[in-house]
Amino acid sequence: MTMARPGGRTARVRAAVVRAVGDALVEHGLAGVDLADVARRAGVGKTTVYRRWGTVAAAVAELVDDMVETSVPRAATGDLESDLRANAELVRSTLADPRQGRLLTALIGAARADERTAAALRRFYDARVREWEPCVAEAVSRGELPAGTDPAEVVRAVSAPLYYRLLTHGELPTEAARDRAVAAALAAARAGVYVV
Amino acid sequence: MTMARPGGRTARVRAAVVRAVGDALVEHGLAGVDLADVARRAGVGKTTVYRRWGTVAAAVAELVDDMVETSVPRAATGDLESDLRANAELVRSTLADPRQGRLLTALIGAARADERTAAALRRFYDARVREWEPCVAEAVSRGELPAGTDPAEVVRAVSAPLYYRLLTHGELPTEAARDRAVAAALAAARAGVYVV
Repeated sequence: MTMARPGGRTARVRAAVVRAVGDALVEHGLAGVDLADVARRAGVGKTTVYRRWGTVAAAVAELVDDMVETSVPRAATGDLESDLRANAELVRSTLADPRQGRLLTALIGAARADERTAAALRRFYDARVREWEPCVAEAVSRGELPAGTDPAEVVRAVSAPLYYRLLTHGELPTEAARDRAVAAALAAARAGVYVV
Repeated sequence: MTMARPGGRTARVRAAVVRAVGDALVEHGLAGVDLADVARRAGVGKTTVYRRWGTVAAAVAELVDDMVETSVPRAATGDLESDLRANAELVRSTLADPRQGRLLTALIGAARADERTAAALRRFYDARVREWEPCVAEAVSRGELPAGTDPAEVVRAVSAPLYYRLLTHGELPTEAARDRAVAAALAAARAGVYVV
């Protein structure tokens, strides 16, 4: 059976390499990623990988850009609490996912020592926050939150406690923690804490 | 001049090794810590270091235990907001300190791949939370917060946004972020979010 593949060979190579870089990061952390090993895992010629990416940092940046492109669109239920719960559930399930969660914590660990990874990670989180900001902006327009509330701060407030427990305690976020994160962000936002 | 040194030679060796492990971690991350290098930095015989600690993980655990022992006692102003601000300022100044901040992020990065470091780090954060819990428990007794509020959750809520921005965005916490973290934790606590 023949199927048209969007993007053709180049896109397939990119997808395989991105997958292989992620696998290597999850298994070994940034220090253990090696382009020759990535090429082997991806089933792609070493020359292709070196020519196209050149460095581990470039391949990792490609992986993060792919995470931005393929990440889940925001909710739009028309109710702030429901939207924030959908956001919190996305964060919870991502962090609790054996591959995604370990990939994010590996990238966070790598960003500390590698400025290019740090920049890619900032682009990822900025893109995620931007995607979900309208949920909060629309709630401000509806009068559910004080005028002047910074939507980005509210979105980040939902994520912060879930990341904090995982990174400092190694605790995968529970559904109770998810609901508490939403309730806390909402209570603070309603009290005007995020008005700028 | 001769001074009595508490603990004598053993304590001095321990202090020098703990300092050297911290320096190596800050410079190279866990993967770059080597006991022979630690001994050299500490001006202590390699045999002493190997005999007493044996592994990098044991030396790192000693460093974290030292962080627990030497960490700053809690505030006791009699006012919850002032106490939480003192806690937030301690977190802010620690994360913003070039050595302490990089040490904590290096440990958090290392904990991902090393269970012994992860356990030591959990002991550190648990000890810090336990130290500050009475500020919240006393506020509950004074009727400033709803009965049944979990003090640990309130203390962690103050830290979470400061760690989150640093770890995902590489942003050192500002005084504005500190004050927002306190205001958010207070608003959520007053709304009963942390009642268990």
